[in-house]
Amino acid sequence: MRSHYCGQLESSLVDQSVTLCGWVNKRRDLGGLIFIDMRDRSGLVQVVFDPDQQALFDTANKLRQEFCIRLVGTVRARPESQVNKNMATGAVEVMATELEIISRAEPLPIDFNQQVSEEQRLRFRYLDLRRPNMNHNLQFRAKVTSAVRRFLDDNGFLDIETPMLTRATPEGARDYLVPSRTHKGKFFALPQSPQLFKQLLMMSGFDRYYQIVKCFRDEDLRADRQPEFTQIDIETSFMTSDQVMAVTEKMVRQLFNDMLDVELGDFPRMTWHEAMRRFGSDKPDLRNPLELVDVADLLTDVEFKVFSGPANDPKGRVAALKVPGKAEAISRKNIDEYTAFVGIYGAKGLAWMKVNDLSAGRDGIQSPVLKFIPDDALNGILARTEAANGDIIFFGADKTTVVAEAMGALRLKVGQDFELVSDEWRPLWVVDFPMFEEHDGRLHAIHHPFTAPVGVSPEELKANPEAALSNAYDMVLNGCEVGGGSVRIHNNEMQQAAFEILGIGKEEAQEKFGFLLEALKYGTPPHAGLAFGLDRLVMLMVGASSIREVIAFPKTTTAACVLTDAPGLANPEALAELNVAVTVKDND
Amino acid sequence: MRSHYCGQLESSLVDQSVTLCGWVNKRRDLGGLIFIDMRDRSGLVQVVFDPDQQALFDTANKLRQEFCIRLVGTVRARPESQVNKNMATGAVEVMATELEIISRAEPLPIDFNQQVSEEQRLRFRYLDLRRPNMNHNLQFRAKVTSAVRRFLDDNGFLDIETPMLTRATPEGARDYLVPSRTHKGKFFALPQSPQLFKQLLMMSGFDRYYQIVKCFRDEDLRADRQPEFTQIDIETSFMTSDQVMAVTEKMVRQLFNDMLDVELGDFPRMTWHEAMRRFGSDKPDLRNPLELVDVADLLTDVEFKVFSGPANDPKGRVAALKVPGKAEAISRKNIDEYTAFVGIYGAKGLAWMKVNDLSAGRDGIQSPVLKFIPDDALNGILARTEAANGDIIFFGADKTTVVAEAMGALRLKVGQDFELVSDEWRPLWVVDFPMFEEHDGRLHAIHHPFTAPVGVSPEELKANPEAALSNAYDMVLNGCEVGGGSVRIHNNEMQQAAFEILGIGKEEAQEKFGFLLEALKYGTPPHAGLAFGLDRLVMLMVGASSIREVIAFPKTTTAACVLTDAPGLANPEALAELNVAVTVKDND
Repeated sequence: MRSHYCGQLESSLVDQSVTLCGWVNKRRDLGGLIFIDMRDRSGLVQVVFDPDQQALFDTANKLRQEFCIRLVGTVRARPESQVNKNMATGAVEVMATELEIISRAEPLPIDFNQQVSEEQRLRFRYLDLRRPNMNHNLQFRAKVTSAVRRFLDDNGFLDIETPMLTRATPEGARDYLVPSRTHKGKFFALPQSPQLFKQLLMMSGFDRYYQIVKCFRDEDLRADRQPEFTQIDIETSFMTSDQVMAVTEKMVRQLFNDMLDVELGDFPRMTWHEAMRRFGSDKPDLRNPLELVDVADLLTDVEFKVFSGPANDPKGRVAALKVPGKAEAISRKNIDEYTAFVGIYGAKGLAWMKVNDLSAGRDGIQSPVLKFIPDDALNGILARTEAANGDIIFFGADKTTVVAEAMGALRLKVGQDFELVSDEWRPLWVVDFPMFEEHDGRLHAIHHPFTAPVGVSPEELKANPEAALSNAYDMVLNGCEVGGGSVRIHNNEMQQAAFEILGIGKEEAQEKFGFLLEALKYGTPPHAGLAFGLDRLVMLMVGASSIREVIAFPKTTTAACVLTDAPGLANPEALAELNVAVTVKDND
Repeated sequence: MRSHYCGQLESSLVDQSVTLCGWVNKRRDLGGLIFIDMRDRSGLVQVVFDPDQQALFDTANKLRQEFCIRLVGTVRARPESQVNKNMATGAVEVMATELEIISRAEPLPIDFNQQVSEEQRLRFRYLDLRRPNMNHNLQFRAKVTSAVRRFLDDNGFLDIETPMLTRATPEGARDYLVPSRTHKGKFFALPQSPQLFKQLLMMSGFDRYYQIVKCFRDEDLRADRQPEFTQIDIETSFMTSDQVMAVTEKMVRQLFNDMLDVELGDFPRMTWHEAMRRFGSDKPDLRNPLELVDVADLLTDVEFKVFSGPANDPKGRVAALKVPGKAEAISRKNIDEYTAFVGIYGAKGLAWMKVNDLSAGRDGIQSPVLKFIPDDALNGILARTEAANGDIIFFGADKTTVVAEAMGALRLKVGQDFELVSDEWRPLWVVDFPMFEEHDGRLHAIHHPFTAPVGVSPEELKANPEAALSNAYDMVLNGCEVGGGSVRIHNNEMQQAAFEILGIGKEEAQEKFGFLLEALKYGTPPHAGLAFGLDRLVMLMVGASSIREVIAFPKTTTAACVLTDAPGLANPEALAELNVAVTVKDND
């Protein structure tokens, strides 16, 4: 029905007749002529209707925004003075010779040129998606998935589908459950990831697997979370963690090169401990130049308990965050705000110190805590942070985890508030994670229970689990974890040891993961893998602020679809067949 | 960890050292040497261990079937007499120099060389998938999806994901439901297809969409059905049905050419009415030469009510199925069996006629119903069926639908029993379906309620819905429907008319499809699409007998996964959070 897309028209087509299909993006009546910007997925082109062709002009006169039309016309060059440099097709326009109104549009419920609430955008998503930036985001996403698939296909990875109706998976988030009709009273779970299936595929000998696959978590939503999200899921056999990192790093490097013409270079590696020490985060944003500096050893003997307490606690930490040259810019009001901000992360306060004049000794330092800090400690801090006149230093003193979270968050906030974050791409690998972390009085897997430890036997692991490092790796980009993975446990004894440490008893392990423990008995290959969050990766690449901007039909923060009005009430007969009943009277 | 895959080794590598990773497929001890067939996903290679290398030989002596090993060795040519022509790598073998047992295997619970129950195969699927034909099937499937994606990417189709947690869809099968935690008492449905979302994407202007996507139907399972199945889902704007058929036909043709080196040629087209008349099926298997021949007009005046009743009923049909040359081969026992067989489809009997000697007149014909058929009718039947000596003719006489189903099925069965089905690929398009079919006293959509009729206004459609043809098309291959699609309704009035005919009242339409009716108001483009059943397509291509042979982890016929033991009991706290309760006491 069309000969060209609107966005393809250019000077080489002048004098040619073209047939276009698309929408009226805008109409202007000027000097007795009608002009429209006609739009399709490729872009816009200007069309002119001349009153000399009366019937055609009369039809054109009916055109309104978002009418769907088919148009025949002749491409002509615009006069030099009317060339529109802001429009890809701005050097030409189409002189209309035929016009068919395919379908009319009522006045739009959302205005493309105004700020519209996200609720309204989602309710009329089919219109919202007509906006050029949403159209671009989804086209870009399609190109990303296509490029990723080609890379993986070309590197011997096999796209193998795993089940959506499956057993509860052990990722630790809440599962979406699906009642079974044929097995009364039982439920499937939607997968939080294909983790166990991809491991089984390695046991089946497929060697290299990938899948771009929907995963599900029934969590309370944050800005960058969705109940269903998409993972680029990868697993390999007989490859070391270095090899898995190399091939996936190459994939991301090639993707950025192809899609954005960006050369990411070799990704640096950083241990988890270094990341926590320098940045208070396991996903440090390296575009931000600020770093934490440990100063506990300088403060063990001060009388000020706020400092000396954590400084003498093996699980405590005292860290300084220097913000160069911002002593003046950061006001008392800012500091109050930052104090409240670190409070969110459990910090009980926020000590600070402005370096006004180093040559003036203590008189050159302004700080509410100055009186508690003796000269040698003060000089030690100033030396170690390499403080200069005009700098401000913040202090966090608390449990190690609280200091890391609070000061890590403060680092990001100050960096953002004072525009210290550079405009570049800063990827890195974070490696050498601890296997386990303790909270609520028991040990939890930092990655998942199938992650292999580095260089220990099952007995050694059980003897000192908190010291063990895992053979895991996270790919971090500009402060976002875009991918994470690990070498997996490939023998039964080690897997049983990991379950035991996590407090999963023999019986529970057998009940939940019996098939995995069984499978580990039949010549399991060493295997390792990684999963990328596709939504987040694309969001970063297009510079969007939320993954909802790169998903065609996302859910709201209450996990609803306001377009189709899902979830909805179920048919009572259907529920009866499924052997379940609703236990609430009033539906919200 | 490896330098080559096993299946890659060939004569050009002789004298090279190679490192392999894989499994012990088989071990043979012969003439003081140990031979193993080593396997990875690419195939097999023979490895030899020489007792001269004592430590290595001792390790080799521990090898058992399915041990996972890493091996270093030197490729050498086999002596001419020992070349194995049945093995891709049969010209060479590897002389082992190093061996590492990566992981041992207990004796296998399933024997790869014996017929094993499907239950056992699924329970130990990770082992079953090691078998070369399953490995081949899934590798083949991955290549198919990759080829399909490349074709669609290269033809301007955008891969766009649609939601898995959505509203009940109108395909008519039972939905899988997912209780919502945040919206108490409400449920998501898993999609039976992305039908409405892909239509919305056309309204958003994406022009060409595709997705290879999981769909869900909670139906009682047959051999070729699974609760979750995979669809190649396609939708286009501004394309006619001919154009959609052309591009998808090209895709399938290219796929068969690339994957199987088969040239399918141009697909013939056949109307639904012709298909039903000649083959009693809307998905005729053209490899089967048998055809139905209508003979009602010859039998209107016979006294035999079994024939004359349907022959005079406008909704009746009398059809003959001639099986050339099988009068002798088809025994009385066969006929009894076929009579029972057509009974499954509602036929009350099966008349037959053996043509022994045409030159002998009535005496040359053997048939229990011969006495009821006067000469002119008999001669008419023999002439129209072009009967020859040695042929047998079966008759179906009943309601049109019963005759089509029963005689269509008989046609297939006889074709199979007597090996009349040729070994070739016979694709075709079935077109011009009726819009609606009547059963249970009301009209149902043959495709779905969004299918556009051909050449009628909404008023005309409502006036005579049963006469309307739909702008729908099914791609049929060797008697399987591999894809189906249609032009969609793109205006509000026609959509409301279709709903009305289907007995979906204004209120119900608004409640269920209000968003679609609303969306149709804002410049909807003409759009059309198609969906292929990927599982079935791959099954046909690899020559498997069930889609379970081309799915990594399929469900059993009771919709269970015997490997992971899904579905399972749900955690009571989880159910409480979801506001649902199980209404059965005893779990099966």
